This record gives sequence, structure tokens and C-alpha cells, in this order.
Amino acid sequence: MPHYSRGLDTYNTILHHSLELFSQKGYDATSVADICHSAQVSKGAFYHHFPSKQDLFLALMSTWLQQLDNLFKTAGDSAANVPAALEGMAQYTGTIFAELKRGFPILLEFWRQASREPQIWEQAVAPYRRYLEFFSKLFRSGIDDGAFTEDLDPDLAAQILMAVVMGLLLQASFDPDGADWQDTTFSGIKLFLKGIRR
Amino acid sequence: MPHYSRGLDTYNTILHHSLELFSQKGYDATSVADICHSAQVSKGAFYHHFPSKQDLFLALMSTWLQQLDNLFKTAGDSAANVPAALEGMAQYTGTIFAELKRGFPILLEFWRQASREPQIWEQAVAPYRRYLEFFSKLFRSGIDDGAFTEDLDPDLAAQILMAVVMGLLLQASFDPDGADWQDTTFSGIKLFLKGIRR
Repeated sequence: MPHYSRGLDTYNTILHHSLELFSQKGYDATSVADICHSAQVSKGAFYHHFPSKQDLFLALMSTWLQQLDNLFKTAGDSAANVPAALEGMAQYTGTIFAELKRGFPILLEFWRQASREPQIWEQAVAPYRRYLEFFSKLFRSGIDDGAFTEDLDPDLAAQILMAVVMGLLLQASFDPDGADWQDTTFSGIKLFLKGIRR
Repeated sequence: MPHYSRGLDTYNTILHHSLELFSQKGYDATSVADICHSAQVSKGAFYHHFPSKQDLFLALMSTWLQQLDNLFKTAGDSAANVPAALEGMAQYTGTIFAELKRGFPILLEFWRQASREPQIWEQAVAPYRRYLEFFSKLFRSGIDDGAFTEDLDPDLAAQILMAVVMGLLLQASFDPDGADWQDTTFSGIKLFLKGIRR
């Protein structure tokens, strides 16, 4: 299927070049024309794959999240209990931290823009809410299993876990040499989990 | 001193209007001309007070930080021990959260821009590093007092505390209706502190 594989190549080439440009210049300052020029594709080919720059960003975001989901699934499947699953997920943060650190400032810029357009915003915020629910359920089942203290609020625990990861990604973005951020993230999640264990 | 007080009025008027514009349009999209127009001051008057838009932003940032420092001082002075001081500071987050929630997305945009200009970046990142050191010392003295577990790494604890606050501010910025964020921040800091207490 040469036509199909060429289409996929163009799709991935556009994703690759747009990430480069977004990282260098920022999301807002990068135009579709810039991306087409860099990826050496026509505007027609671009718009065949992505109705808009926002759709391109959402596609980039879902490739990151797909990787994250796969890692979380691997960590969850092999774990004996909920704290072990969460520690396993934290262990993988090292693998994906470099990638996320690059994408995170772009995500922040996109979120800020998306906040003015309800439909795009719903799509941008949906994965965040999905992870929140995922972790809340995980904490809930850890409480039921007796791994975490009974008075733990699973929604609060999920918000704090997300805050730790996002807050460290933020610190890593604007102060990259301030610490070994991969190590800090892993140790920080372990410290938080230790505090809520029974 | 009519001249002095008029100067102070102009200074504060510019700060007030620039915050409004930065919140609405973003930091980058707001020009000095926009600010002068909104504040009804001449460009001459603007540049008399602020050599550049970046200096104006740094002045805005230091008014926020001054408020924060005052609240921290009040909380610290009246506390019997380190965990009580930290809980006292967390209690004040409610008072300043609304203000910070507004300034935080602007701060993120500024940080992103500042990362390309070493001198500005140094000034932008300095308060973050100062708070990190402040909290690290506070955790250190809490360990020495026997309030926190002996194996606690005070630098890590400070990074996690900052991550919790920044990560929750971030969630509050892009999902304002997702939770009662003031309450979540207070409860989240308490949960973290409880976990590291002896």
C-alpha cells in the first residue's frame, strides 16, 4: 500500500517538524506555513491531515499520552498491589520525562490559548480529567485493600499526585539545571506515597 | 509632596492596568502602547518608571512576592514549631490564591520568554530559588527539632512542597471549576506534612 504508507510518512513528518518548531519558537509564533516549509510539504497535504494547527497540536498531545498510557498499563499489569503499581509508574517517569519536559511548555501555551475557545478547551482538558479519575480510582482501591489510610480522600490524593508531577515538570522547564529532575520526581512520588501508606 | 505622590499614583496606575491587560490578552500580545493607552499615561511617563515591559513585569512580580513574604512572616512569627508554621502559611494560601491564580499564567508566559534572555531570566528565577532555600532551611530545622522524620531530605521536601503549590495553581488556572482549589491547596499541604511528620 504505497499510498497509505506515504500518507503516514507525511503525517509523522509534519508531527516531527511541528514539535521542533513549537519547542524553538513557541506554539503561537509558529504558523502552518512555517511547518509546511520545514517539513517540505504543501499546504494541501497539511490540511489533508490536519484541519487546523489546533488539531495538529491535539494529535501531538495524543501521541504523548499514548506512550504514557502504555507505560502505565505495563506498570499496572505487573504490580502486586496499588502502591507497587504507583511506584512502578513513577519509575517510568524517568523514561518519559525528557520527552514531556519538551512538550510541557508547549502544552501550557496551548492550554492558555484554548481557554478562550470552549470546544478546543474541552479536548485539551479531557486527558487531564481522565488521569485524575484514573488515579482517584486507583487510590480508592488502595484504601479498600488496606494499603492506604482509611481517612485518605482519593480525589485529593489524585490532585496532589498530579500536582507533584506537573509542579516538578514546571520547575524542570524553567530551571533545567536546578536539580536532577527525573530523580527528584521519582523520589518525590515515593515520599508522598510513603506518607499516605497505612 | 504633590509631585512625589503623583509619581507614585502613575506607577501604581500603570501596574494596575498592565495586570488587567496581561490577564486578558497575555503578556506577549500586550504592548507598551496598549498599557499607556489603557492607563492614560504618556510613553515618557511610562519609561520614566519602567525602562522596559520586562522591568514592569518584574515590578508586578515583586509586589506579589512582597505580599507573600509578609504573610509568611506573620505565619512564622506566631507559630510554636516548624509544622505549625508551615500549616499557618498554608492557611494563608486562601487569602492570596485568587491573586496568584490570575498572575500565575502571566508568570508562566514570562518565564518562557525570559528563558531566552539570561539576564532577565536570572531575575525571574531568583525568587523561586529563594523560596526553595527558605523552605529547605525550614524543613532542616524541623528535622533537627524532631518534628519531621530523620531520613527526610530537606531539599526534596522543599521541591515537593513547591511542586504541590505550583501544580495546584496550574490546575486551578486551566480548570478553574474543577475543584475548590483554595481548599484543595490547604488540604493537600496538610496531607503532605502529615506524611513526613515523625
